[in-house]
Amino acid sequence: MAKKSAFEELCGMAREIALLHSCGAVLGWDQETYLPPKAVEYRAAQLSLLSAKAHALVTGRRFRGLLEKAVAEWGSDKSPDSVRTEANLREWTHQVDRAARIPTALVAQESALTARAKHAWSEARRRSDFASFAPYLRDIVGLARRKAALWGFEEEPYDALLSGYERGAKTRTVAVLFETLQPRVAEIARKAVERSRARPRVERGGKYPVERQKILNEEIARDIGFDFHAGRIDTTAHPFCTTLGPADVRLTTRYEERDFTSSLFGVLHEAGHGLYEQGLVAADYGLPTGEAVSLGIHESQSRLWENHVGRSVEFWQKWYPRAVELFPCLKRVELEAFLAELNRAEFSFIRVEADEATYDLHIFLRFDVERRLVSGELEVEEVPRAWAEGFEALFGVVPSGDAQGCLQDIHWSMGGIGYFATYTLGNVNAAQLFESARRERAVAAGLKEGRYGPLLEWLRNRVHQPGSRYFPQDLMVRATGRATDPKPYLAHLRRRFLGS
Amino acid sequence: MAKKSAFEELCGMAREIALLHSCGAVLGWDQETYLPPKAVEYRAAQLSLLSAKAHALVTGRRFRGLLEKAVAEWGSDKSPDSVRTEANLREWTHQVDRAARIPTALVAQESALTARAKHAWSEARRRSDFASFAPYLRDIVGLARRKAALWGFEEEPYDALLSGYERGAKTRTVAVLFETLQPRVAEIARKAVERSRARPRVERGGKYPVERQKILNEEIARDIGFDFHAGRIDTTAHPFCTTLGPADVRLTTRYEERDFTSSLFGVLHEAGHGLYEQGLVAADYGLPTGEAVSLGIHESQSRLWENHVGRSVEFWQKWYPRAVELFPCLKRVELEAFLAELNRAEFSFIRVEADEATYDLHIFLRFDVERRLVSGELEVEEVPRAWAEGFEALFGVVPSGDAQGCLQDIHWSMGGIGYFATYTLGNVNAAQLFESARRERAVAAGLKEGRYGPLLEWLRNRVHQPGSRYFPQDLMVRATGRATDPKPYLAHLRRRFLGS
Repeated sequence: MAKKSAFEELCGMAREIALLHSCGAVLGWDQETYLPPKAVEYRAAQLSLLSAKAHALVTGRRFRGLLEKAVAEWGSDKSPDSVRTEANLREWTHQVDRAARIPTALVAQESALTARAKHAWSEARRRSDFASFAPYLRDIVGLARRKAALWGFEEEPYDALLSGYERGAKTRTVAVLFETLQPRVAEIARKAVERSRARPRVERGGKYPVERQKILNEEIARDIGFDFHAGRIDTTAHPFCTTLGPADVRLTTRYEERDFTSSLFGVLHEAGHGLYEQGLVAADYGLPTGEAVSLGIHESQSRLWENHVGRSVEFWQKWYPRAVELFPCLKRVELEAFLAELNRAEFSFIRVEADEATYDLHIFLRFDVERRLVSGELEVEEVPRAWAEGFEALFGVVPSGDAQGCLQDIHWSMGGIGYFATYTLGNVNAAQLFESARRERAVAAGLKEGRYGPLLEWLRNRVHQPGSRYFPQDLMVRATGRATDPKPYLAHLRRRFLGS
Repeated sequence: MAKKSAFEELCGMAREIALLHSCGAVLGWDQETYLPPKAVEYRAAQLSLLSAKAHALVTGRRFRGLLEKAVAEWGSDKSPDSVRTEANLREWTHQVDRAARIPTALVAQESALTARAKHAWSEARRRSDFASFAPYLRDIVGLARRKAALWGFEEEPYDALLSGYERGAKTRTVAVLFETLQPRVAEIARKAVERSRARPRVERGGKYPVERQKILNEEIARDIGFDFHAGRIDTTAHPFCTTLGPADVRLTTRYEERDFTSSLFGVLHEAGHGLYEQGLVAADYGLPTGEAVSLGIHESQSRLWENHVGRSVEFWQKWYPRAVELFPCLKRVELEAFLAELNRAEFSFIRVEADEATYDLHIFLRFDVERRLVSGELEVEEVPRAWAEGFEALFGVVPSGDAQGCLQDIHWSMGGIGYFATYTLGNVNAAQLFESARRERAVAAGLKEGRYGPLLEWLRNRVHQPGSRYFPQDLMVRATGRATDPKPYLAHLRRRFLGS
């Protein structure tokens, strides 16, 4: 048997690390879905053991030694699948470099801090009291600044944080994109809210038994291509999607008895993430080429299925009769009225409950606050005031308290600073990918007839299967002919909310 | 800070090993409850990684070195809790000795094999096709023989397997007990079946909605003392109980819409196991003194709650009105008739559905088949025939196919050879413990009034809290004044089924 190349050995080690991570993912999923309350403490110990073991392998001498050897060997490699090798070596080098710059003590400090901060945040939100969370946020921002300094950056510290979620992204580029979007989205939102206000509210209240919601959700998820032999749907307080192995993608949603669309759009959104995960090359599971490339691309998949497919007329022409069959109380509601309700625009305080027209305004605000916090332009104590002012400028109202304002999202308490921009990147990418996909006759015809196979195949080939072969912006160019471009998204919002 | 003793360091390491095992337990539980079918293969890889890591720690130089040092230190120890230290050192020495005899590669091989075999078994049982499971069973029996040879034994290879489940037990002693029991149980069974046949069947068929069964099951499990903040109940094909951490005990059951007692007795049985697990000393989780001592003692707890408590007149005097409330179709059935049905004796093919009178006959059969398989007297291909012949001799009928015969139980597919005798040991121990407990006035009074606290406390003190401090037979002597004795069990069967 031929001796394994350093690259092959590296792949083997990466697969073992992925195995450990995937065990942690199973425990994490169980924690959100089924864990009894008294077991929380021990679960934390289980998870930290697994992540410590995986971390030790990634940062250990053996992995780094193999990587150096493989990079050296690579210069002389003439193998046909050179893009795959190159991409994996590039991403591993990047990951090891980032990991090596953070001292182990800092990692431990961060995980201890965020464990306490998550608890403090949920208490602070419950009491709508930013002051009690402020000391934690101060430490978290301090840590973020230190990490940014250790990782290094060209223009501003926020770059170093953002690129952990969106490979190759620059804060300035995102800021420019957001400056283009903000006045336009704000105008569309304002008009959309006006139009919605002028329209009488259609009462579609009734009882939507959870068991029947589950039937509809599963039928729809299966129909758009989610493979239930390699995944499932469970119930949690906050919907999410997590991957426990190359053929094991778990979605979750939450149910409201008075409104079946809440759980359904949770499923459509998470199934969009899930289709991406199920579309990755299983043989490369654990290697960068078998992993999603960035959050901005991931979110494009969830938003594409949730909004572009799931809120369209064509979609409901297919599915409304089935919904009426399952929920007889819908008999009183015409399809057109149902659709108008579905796309009602309103100014609301909570991002996760926001409609498409107003959603990005929440993101612009938080991106701005975060960026200024990290640069030092804004101090932690000033956050509630900055939030309220920014919110008023965008929405015309002031949140009634911190819980409805700057405390609403969990991300800061988890140390997730630099994350938020990817939500709007996802919206913009989704519109651009959907527009390109629909230019293909088979995709357009499929959507008209309620067949989602051609669209999924288009996404499989251009977005899912490459994994992390290319940087997100290169992926966008390859898939659509250009880098992330706000035009298709703005056109989509105008079409949907202003009918123009 | 004082330097840690070798014993303390050993405890720390044992807790880390337990952490790894408990991660595997989470993945194993998920595999039985929620795992999508395509994920089976990767799950096997995840489980084998975790078990290999745990095995490497137990058999590694560090653990063994610490153990030797701790044993040496122990000679001079005068600490007050010396029984605890001694028991832990005794059990670790035993475990390390057993583990060290099994090469790590064999452990990984076994865990990968059994993960696949479980899947193959469930397919084979569905199609009632032993031939498709035979190749897996051949590998599993081969592994069992190899392990027995590596562990070593005094009299026969089966000893080495049995003592993995029942510390200190000998095949010959069990065989002698079974020889005493078999003719007596067979006679009671024969008469009990005759009596039941002579009695008209009471129709309690109706619809028992699963959601209502769940309500009753949870109320009863909670009432006998199961802590739902440290455990839960899910649904599986084959009920079981598994512990995922010191405060996380998962029970499962299965539901039949035509008979609520099927899921309820599944829960009572598994809750009996669960009460034992929840009664162990949490601070010693991961140490032998915080672990159940044997399967024969474990099964005594499940059978005690299932049969001695759950099938008694007093129990149903309390719970029958609630059952009637939840299932109005029971209104037509008098309590006395319901109880008679509950304790109806029949010759049936499936062990887990067998009544108390005929249950042990299934065990005698499988114990005999297993013992001969391991000794090499019987080959895997001959199992279906041997099963059918043995079954006919005991029950007077032949199973109609493999699903109703030798494929009915999951244990072989999990590598659990040497396990079955503990079911009958459990029955015998249960009767003996229950007889002793009821001699206490508070326990007897509690049972009469439907208060299970005094019984649970008696079991907590005498059976649960000792963990593995004493050998099972020593535990029985301490709790009841004598070693495992068939008399109370035979008396119980005669009283219940022959009214004498």
